[in-house]
Amino acid sequence: MPTAPLLIALATALTLPIAPPLLADPAGVAAEVRTWRQAHEQDILDGFAQLLSLPNVASDLPDMRRNAAHISGLLQERGFTVSLLEAEGAPPAVFAERRTPGADRTLMIYAHYDGQPVNPDDWASDPWTPVLRDAPVELGGRLLPMAAPFDPGSRIFARSAGDDKAPIVALAAALDALGAAGIELSVNLKLFLDGEEESGSPHLQQVLSAHRDKLAADLWLFCDGPVHQSRRWQLVYGVRGATGFDLTVYGPNRPLHSGHYGNWAPNPIARLLELIGSMRAPDGRILVDGYAAEVEPPSLAELAAIEAAPPMDAALQAEFGIGQPETDERVELAILRPAMNLRGIRSGGVGAEATNSIQTAATASIGLRLVPDQTPAYLREVIERHVAGQGYFVVHDEPTADQRAAHDRIARLDWREAGYPAYRAPMDLPIAQEVAAILDGLRDEPLIQLPSMGGSLPIYLVEQETGAPVVILPVANHDNNQHGRNENLRLQNLWDAIEIYAAVLTHL
Amino acid sequence: MPTAPLLIALATALTLPIAPPLLADPAGVAAEVRTWRQAHEQDILDGFAQLLSLPNVASDLPDMRRNAAHISGLLQERGFTVSLLEAEGAPPAVFAERRTPGADRTLMIYAHYDGQPVNPDDWASDPWTPVLRDAPVELGGRLLPMAAPFDPGSRIFARSAGDDKAPIVALAAALDALGAAGIELSVNLKLFLDGEEESGSPHLQQVLSAHRDKLAADLWLFCDGPVHQSRRWQLVYGVRGATGFDLTVYGPNRPLHSGHYGNWAPNPIARLLELIGSMRAPDGRILVDGYAAEVEPPSLAELAAIEAAPPMDAALQAEFGIGQPETDERVELAILRPAMNLRGIRSGGVGAEATNSIQTAATASIGLRLVPDQTPAYLREVIERHVAGQGYFVVHDEPTADQRAAHDRIARLDWREAGYPAYRAPMDLPIAQEVAAILDGLRDEPLIQLPSMGGSLPIYLVEQETGAPVVILPVANHDNNQHGRNENLRLQNLWDAIEIYAAVLTHL
Repeated sequence: MPTAPLLIALATALTLPIAPPLLADPAGVAAEVRTWRQAHEQDILDGFAQLLSLPNVASDLPDMRRNAAHISGLLQERGFTVSLLEAEGAPPAVFAERRTPGADRTLMIYAHYDGQPVNPDDWASDPWTPVLRDAPVELGGRLLPMAAPFDPGSRIFARSAGDDKAPIVALAAALDALGAAGIELSVNLKLFLDGEEESGSPHLQQVLSAHRDKLAADLWLFCDGPVHQSRRWQLVYGVRGATGFDLTVYGPNRPLHSGHYGNWAPNPIARLLELIGSMRAPDGRILVDGYAAEVEPPSLAELAAIEAAPPMDAALQAEFGIGQPETDERVELAILRPAMNLRGIRSGGVGAEATNSIQTAATASIGLRLVPDQTPAYLREVIERHVAGQGYFVVHDEPTADQRAAHDRIARLDWREAGYPAYRAPMDLPIAQEVAAILDGLRDEPLIQLPSMGGSLPIYLVEQETGAPVVILPVANHDNNQHGRNENLRLQNLWDAIEIYAAVLTHL
Repeated sequence: MPTAPLLIALATALTLPIAPPLLADPAGVAAEVRTWRQAHEQDILDGFAQLLSLPNVASDLPDMRRNAAHISGLLQERGFTVSLLEAEGAPPAVFAERRTPGADRTLMIYAHYDGQPVNPDDWASDPWTPVLRDAPVELGGRLLPMAAPFDPGSRIFARSAGDDKAPIVALAAALDALGAAGIELSVNLKLFLDGEEESGSPHLQQVLSAHRDKLAADLWLFCDGPVHQSRRWQLVYGVRGATGFDLTVYGPNRPLHSGHYGNWAPNPIARLLELIGSMRAPDGRILVDGYAAEVEPPSLAELAAIEAAPPMDAALQAEFGIGQPETDERVELAILRPAMNLRGIRSGGVGAEATNSIQTAATASIGLRLVPDQTPAYLREVIERHVAGQGYFVVHDEPTADQRAAHDRIARLDWREAGYPAYRAPMDLPIAQEVAAILDGLRDEPLIQLPSMGGSLPIYLVEQETGAPVVILPVANHDNNQHGRNENLRLQNLWDAIEIYAAVLTHL
């Protein structure tokens, strides 16, 4: 007859088989991980704050090495083999790998550990001294102690809180939770943590190309960017490409008295406005001949996916104080078109700095967002042809006195960024559909799937250099002040990220 | 029998009657004065340099009092009764008067002793340490010792060298030369030396109004501005008026990521360009409905005067590196039209300061030049009506959140300058014709007479407050870098000014 302890052991053993069926379900894993997280929120946030305390502007190489070392340590503690992928004069990419016995597929997670440069004077608190607030600074958020219990609506403020250190910490927590619960991963896991994404990843191609074998994977999951503005999770199949230029036109060779010469001397501001107006209609349509030649129209599947997503325009208009958008398309459709963004314009002074002068030059900074299959080289060609067609002699450096004497109208185009094309995975990509199915089971609301983010990432390089497909799985709140002052991450987004990663890592 | 000494005395006495007929001719006076000047160039320039060494930005009241005291001393030494005309918180106007026995007319000479603010870093040498150079700084001018003999093509560099301390020194030299030659003036002489012209003479009306009797004169001669670009002397019958405003339009209430929202969020730069384009054609024509309603077309006499002046357009185009002016009218005609000058534009950054953002606002600074009989109040009215007609809600302060929520398009118009109308004396004004006849006899080339300078001076106030007619008799070289860095006066212009003043003071 079994003794009582034996009975207990037996009963315990008997309950074990119940667990696997629960855990086999992504929602079951998520629930398990949630329980663990709820007991460890203080530890997770302390670790996050520690990582956020390390300044991480890509141009500061010693700072970046401190970040890379800290992250390497985190990953090694969790069973990863870590190596630093180096390019001359650049912060290293942190590469990490953890094999799963019996797994036959490999998932690569991409994130980046560098952050945008900061102007600390603009911030409500030091960008690298993380603090907790109960709301965004703009809405009067008040400081909270960084101590449990935590309101999931509160936010941690620091550079890179949302863009893009959160995935690193969420992934570490997911692995800890899974380990504590004795749940195995279903895939081999690799990480590629870029150290110079915010400066345009100038060495990414070189690094990808030099380590093709190491970086082989069945899917790259780009963990960057914001979730849907409805705060629902989304899987995104592409990004827009990006390039940009400064456009300068010229007036007299020295500032002229606007009284003595106003109405006679050509005004470079007026010329710049006219030239920009010939390129871009007030509603954003691009008027450059041939500009759309390379544009691939959205597929029916892409349009259907957008149709299925909740419309956010009215809420965004209210949030941003926008009376009327530039277009009557919903935002998800508008960003499937190429964009010509006027991002800055400068000539002379305004307000107390105005002088009664006709300026010598006027400059606009114009950012281009590309859609498939546009290439920066082609856009550069058609734009320069357009500018020349408006009667301008096109130069790429400061015009010489001889050039100015020889040409009435001179336009300088300064292509400051080499730029890169868009990327779009097909929405029926099987492995992406598997990820979608896993995520779709985690919450009551259906997963949002969208063809493209409006923003840009050099994803095309991954496909080009490694051949692997890429989808984007963002975790940050959309109102995280990405790139701006008072960047933040909403805690619920961090908690969600842990569950999302755990579900994908155990069910792909 | 007369002794030899007596004979010599007699011969000397006999030659005396020959002198008056020569001196009765303005050219004779000029020749006499020239001889005196050639012997005293070092003294004249030393005195000029001393005056130019006194910093004279109107907002620095102690500096301005030092200038006023120095100038008062100069004038008292030359027989003037001097008083300071005060307005609360302003530099004083220096008023000086010197009666001529038997004269029945009074000439008022206007100049100003304040100068534009400086940015010393922009200058090749300290703005208040006068130096001599053999050419403009832009043309590689080299330093010369400030010691006779002086090349008349060389230039003295200092703030206010050209605008507008030169008339004070030239007038003092003319009086010294006339005194040395024993030549009497033909008029009573008054001087009005403004101390805040460069800051818009905000107290001029108050001072004129408070001292009407003291300031009574048969003619005000405004000694300010440049001579004709041909370097020939000119008498000018008017000035344009001036006013101006900052025009700001708005985008989202915080900078938005140009990727996520580009093509959807309204771009304030694009809106500003469109709004400006609705107001001003690229060739400078003003498109605002009703704008020209107050414009008095130029008279036949004015057009004929311009026709008689040497055309300068080709030379100015070469000098300023201008391929094609904004208009096919010659510059003297173009400035008879009202002008809408785009003097500055600002939104976001360009070059390395560009961010991939849709900006929250864009501002242009727009200067207006008025012609008879336009008034600032009317232009403000038609411009605001035009902006409203383009669908904008017009405000004059930063719009509130409520206003932004209620209106899609908001334009802020900030009329920073109250402004003032143009002034134009009739070209057949008898006393001005007398001045012209005197000047016309001084050189082989005929005097240039023009209906208006393009620049602005608050001359209308003089006519309004004192009833006296005004004409403008400039002495500075047109390429004196007025208001800019490396301001200068060409010595020949100073020498000419002495002769011009002497001729007018003895023959009006």
